[in-house]
Amino acid sequence: SNSVRIAVLPGDGIGTEVTEATLLVLEPLARRHGIGLATEVLPAGAFHYQATGEGFPESSFRAAAAADAILLGAMGWPGIRQADGTEIAPQLDLRVRLNLYAGVRPVRAIPGVPVALADPRAREIDLVLIRESTEGLFHSRGQGLVTPDLAEETLRITRATTEKLSRFAFRLAQRRSAQRGRPGRVTLVDKANVFRAFAFMRGVFDGVAREFPEVGSGHHYVDAMALDLVRRPWEFDVLPTENMFGDILSDLGAGLVGGMGFSPSADIGDAHAVFQPAHGTAPDIAGQGIANPTATLLSAAMMLDWLASRGAGQGFADAAAELDDAVDRAFAEGLRTYDVGGRGDTAAVARAVMDRIGA
Amino acid sequence: SNSVRIAVLPGDGIGTEVTEATLLVLEPLARRHGIGLATEVLPAGAFHYQATGEGFPESSFRAAAAADAILLGAMGWPGIRQADGTEIAPQLDLRVRLNLYAGVRPVRAIPGVPVALADPRAREIDLVLIRESTEGLFHSRGQGLVTPDLAEETLRITRATTEKLSRFAFRLAQRRSAQRGRPGRVTLVDKANVFRAFAFMRGVFDGVAREFPEVGSGHHYVDAMALDLVRRPWEFDVLPTENMFGDILSDLGAGLVGGMGFSPSADIGDAHAVFQPAHGTAPDIAGQGIANPTATLLSAAMMLDWLASRGAGQGFADAAAELDDAVDRAFAEGLRTYDVGGRGDTAAVARAVMDRIGA
Ligand SMILES: CC(C)[C@H](C(=O)O)[C@@H](O)C(=O)O
Ligand SMILES: CC(C)[C@H](C(=O)O)[C@@H](O)C(=O)O
Repeated sequence: SNSVRIAVLPGDGIGTEVTEATLLVLEPLARRHGIGLATEVLPAGAFHYQATGEGFPESSFRAAAAADAILLGAMGWPGIRQADGTEIAPQLDLRVRLNLYAGVRPVRAIPGVPVALADPRAREIDLVLIRESTEGLFHSRGQGLVTPDLAEETLRITRATTEKLSRFAFRLAQRRSAQRGRPGRVTLVDKANVFRAFAFMRGVFDGVAREFPEVGSGHHYVDAMALDLVRRPWEFDVLPTENMFGDILSDLGAGLVGGMGFSPSADIGDAHAVFQPAHGTAPDIAGQGIANPTATLLSAAMMLDWLASRGAGQGFADAAAELDDAVDRAFAEGLRTYDVGGRGDTAAVARAVMDRIGA
Repeated sequence: SNSVRIAVLPGDGIGTEVTEATLLVLEPLARRHGIGLATEVLPAGAFHYQATGEGFPESSFRAAAAADAILLGAMGWPGIRQADGTEIAPQLDLRVRLNLYAGVRPVRAIPGVPVALADPRAREIDLVLIRESTEGLFHSRGQGLVTPDLAEETLRITRATTEKLSRFAFRLAQRRSAQRGRPGRVTLVDKANVFRAFAFMRGVFDGVAREFPEVGSGHHYVDAMALDLVRRPWEFDVLPTENMFGDILSDLGAGLVGGMGFSPSADIGDAHAVFQPAHGTAPDIAGQGIANPTATLLSAAMMLDWLASRGAGQGFADAAAELDDAVDRAFAEGLRTYDVGGRGDTAAVARAVMDRIGA
């Protein structure tokens, strides 16, 4: 059928605001493309934890797992913490429980949105970080050893997940290459010069690379990549990496192209996927209606595209392309949000994008 | 006495070139300030490993440990690897064996050297990353578990080292505050929202912070710091962090202020210290005489300053200040190295700096 079920987890703070704006835009978009989006809003997050003692009710998890896709706002709140001091983060639970190993984080300069670097080539930035999202250092989340004198966490890299991650990266590079009409290139970001686990990861990656002889492949140390994301980010294409490295580098990347308000993400597994803006709940501006919903809109476009790739129908792919394009045109034509010094509030972005749908 | 012994480990590739240029400059500088620098050049590195089977001969280590300070070029070479695939890195051995816990990595915009960010405030960047350099993820270096199906490394944070690192950071902030006439601020970079080991580190840091009530103190998540180093690096002062995080963030920082050729570093312990440029051996340009020795010159200035703080005498502090100043003036007055698109080769930088000593 042409209809899918979307589980919506707005979460805390501006999470609820950007989600609302995105649902507003999705409605006319879906109508126009003849696709059915049945949404179900589910409770989860820090305030839910505070009110009920549960950050992620099992009923919410089950409903999310049963949906065709999951759209998430943002979760967590300063001062609302678990007993061990770590954050309420149902998004991390989803990554592990639904095995969403591929954390897809595009870093793309949107026409009209100010970029951070002085070099004019920064306007051509168009890369994708793929943060492995189920293991690496996060394998240890909530399980670290703590004694009075020391604390330890274990970083784990498995062959099975590295193979999946690598295949995902090469397939994405193939697809981007076809869309862009230029050769694709996958660069593994690791620290194989110091750690056996990363030498292991590199070996597994190289094995998968041989399955894709038409896609370029290489490696880069994570420290050198941090440098090169500042010096020549326009030269990179698809960058798979370990979970903690990907967390750091994707925020760096977001900083290059306007900040977290412009950075969508998708956590994708073999059977499920979560789409969410890269930003957090932004307590400093929550409740004022000035949050930038662009990252959530672009995440929703990734969701529609992913649903199309799973057989939901061409209408979904068309809707995704139109949403992406409407966002690009809104900014190219002068929209400026608060986070980049403008006066376009949450509702104004939704309006500007809706105005350009079907136009 | 007014004389110290410096162990010099030039290492591989451009390591030898930048070290030579620096020794050239140190000679007239020492003469002028009436300080004695007895240098002893010691073999170590990838080519030494290739020739002898030893990357870091015990005799070199002992001589380095017996010297008053250690000046290091760069080590490692692609294709020359240990059996487990990791690099020949005597600099890492020194950090651990001499307990050099404080990896001091200044990130400062040098007048005249192009900065990466478009915002004009980027010219005011003046922060110091302090990379803990004996434990963290590197605790596991060369000891990772590898099976056919998975690999693991252990990140370790100890109370003892975190206390030392934190005290070092607060003392440095005090000193910088006095020099600059503005309040100091120490910001721990961690990931305490996800990992118990980092919540532990934060707790220890907060305890030390109470010993320094006149210095500001705070925390920042490592991913948010990667973003903010791109968005507003001019707002930060002293940033202590875990080893792996510091490796990544210090390269990011170097990228902001002209690249690795302008980024000095010092690995400091209670009894020993190693001073070296943040860059590697640069096989692509080695042997051509075009490497930028600025980072090594600035590292040598850090060395002279550290020797002064250890009681070597005021002449050392004066020499450090004059060397720093001569480098700044050389670039402010038009010197441009190859790495930033100019034609100033290694010898030209040494000459330009020497010309400004005593001038
Ligand atoms: C909020 C936090 C736990 C989360 C993470 O570290 O994964 C966030 O930084 C992210 O990138 O999704
Ligand atoms: C060469 C490498 C092993 C080293 C490290 O990771 O410490 C380098 O990146 C550094 O920052 O000193």
